[in-house]
Amino acid sequence: MAREIRDVVEQYVKLVGTGPTADIVDLYAPDAVIEDPIGTEPKQGHEAIREFYDVIASLERETSLAPETVRIAGNHAAFVFTLVTRAGGQRMTLSPIDAMEFDDDGRIIRMRAYWSAEDMSVEPE
Amino acid sequence: MAREIRDVVEQYVKLVGTGPTADIVDLYAPDAVIEDPIGTEPKQGHEAIREFYDVIASLERETSLAPETVRIAGNHAAFVFTLVTRAGGQRMTLSPIDAMEFDDDGRIIRMRAYWSAEDMSVEPE
Repeated sequence: MAREIRDVVEQYVKLVGTGPTADIVDLYAPDAVIEDPIGTEPKQGHEAIREFYDVIASLERETSLAPETVRIAGNHAAFVFTLVTRAGGQRMTLSPIDAMEFDDDGRIIRMRAYWSAEDMSVEPE
Repeated sequence: MAREIRDVVEQYVKLVGTGPTADIVDLYAPDAVIEDPIGTEPKQGHEAIREFYDVIASLERETSLAPETVRIAGNHAAFVFTLVTRAGGQRMTLSPIDAMEFDDDGRIIRMRAYWSAEDMSVEPE
């Protein structure tokens, strides 16, 4: 299970950087819940999750996983990754810790992202 | 609140390395719940939390926070830290991601630790 979860984490980070959104959504169970950042209104189900990731779908972007941070415990994982987007001459960098829970089929059933404005930077390109 | 939470995270990691247990327990709200590692039976309340930290109280040990990993979102925090213990000629290193939730007084109400045997190493000193 740990190997499978690590694979999903790696796919997740890669797909957030490349899309398509549908492939990100497919990593989630149909009734999965995301809370990004944690403390905001949770979004449940594939349609809400699709809308969430569609926000970045049109942006030039790239992602990288900090592989040394990946922690897996049973059906749970947590890790640091970085998302860089470029739009309107600005480069935005966001680096959250994501915490995920998985079902026995290796689908994400819950994702909670730990970050605030302090973990984001915006610079001219 | 973010500043206060960061202070508690720093105190927590320091106290796990130095004790006393009572000072660690004081960082928790009376009815706080810990799950370490996540997926194991949660332990609730100061007495159960005291028993949990008492396990390492007699060991020679040190801790370090990876400050660049600290993420704070509202009343939540997540971070990587490392605990090194020395006993019986062996050096054990454990490096979890801890996820914490805080009450409005800055006390920890929930701690969940992400780690498995893969994040632990044991070596002769």
